[in-house]
Amino acid sequence: MDDEFFMYEALVQAKIAFEKKEVPIGAVLVFENKIITRAHNLTESKNDPTAHAEILCVRDASKIFDNWRLTGATLYTTLEPCVMCSGALISSRISRVVWGAKDIRQGGNGSWVDLFAKKHPIHQLEIEGGVLAEESAALLKDFFKLRREENAV
Amino acid sequence: MDDEFFMYEALVQAKIAFEKKEVPIGAVLVFENKIITRAHNLTESKNDPTAHAEILCVRDASKIFDNWRLTGATLYTTLEPCVMCSGALISSRISRVVWGAKDIRQGGNGSWVDLFAKKHPIHQLEIEGGVLAEESAALLKDFFKLRREENAV
Repeated sequence: MDDEFFMYEALVQAKIAFEKKEVPIGAVLVFENKIITRAHNLTESKNDPTAHAEILCVRDASKIFDNWRLTGATLYTTLEPCVMCSGALISSRISRVVWGAKDIRQGGNGSWVDLFAKKHPIHQLEIEGGVLAEESAALLKDFFKLRREENAV
Repeated sequence: MDDEFFMYEALVQAKIAFEKKEVPIGAVLVFENKIITRAHNLTESKNDPTAHAEILCVRDASKIFDNWRLTGATLYTTLEPCVMCSGALISSRISRVVWGAKDIRQGGNGSWVDLFAKKHPIHQLEIEGGVLAEESAALLKDFFKLRREENAV
């Protein structure tokens, strides 16, 4: 199975977030070609600024593996991870990260800063962006358009 | 009450982590001169790479305030926050961060990278380091010395 297959699953999560009026970002964590955890942004529902899709996937997977080191796993997320999530992914020792659309304001892989351009002293991971970027960006655009319309009523 | 008063409370948390064989880092979150949450690193006990003292304090405070925006609060942490925690503090909209010892390998406020040197597009916070730095550094030094001795047995 390829990156697009898993990114579609992350997009399904982003759509669930959309329905909950959460900023539509989704993620799945994959190990040995199987999806281990699925999550979507729950910042508002959980009243938790750390409840981003990536963090929730990592936390759940650590519980499932009974190990906070996620070596060998790949995280698919529909948006370029912010610096918090980028740091969490480094801390988790995950092997690979694949993201969708650029987060032009806050992205931690080149948009605001690039935390992966400088060698981390403890863990380096493989990271690439742009997988199903248009689908992810369209979902975010629709979400913010709808929210602006609701607020204008 | 001054910064040292609250940093001593964060150090009490770091010592609790030490007793649990967790890397001894502690934090307290203060609002209107009162401690709202206290936490220490629980990465190993919780099997969670995101269970750093700062993240736990922020998450608990968001629950208490029933609001993920912690504007007006100050976070005291015994160690320079890593990039994950630095990002979480930015995301939480916290107003001020005070830290103790430098994390020369992974610190996100000047040691590995400086996430506060560049203006964040959404939130800027006041940050300063070096409060009770020697006490915090000594605790970490003792911890790693002890762990090396245990591993050598």
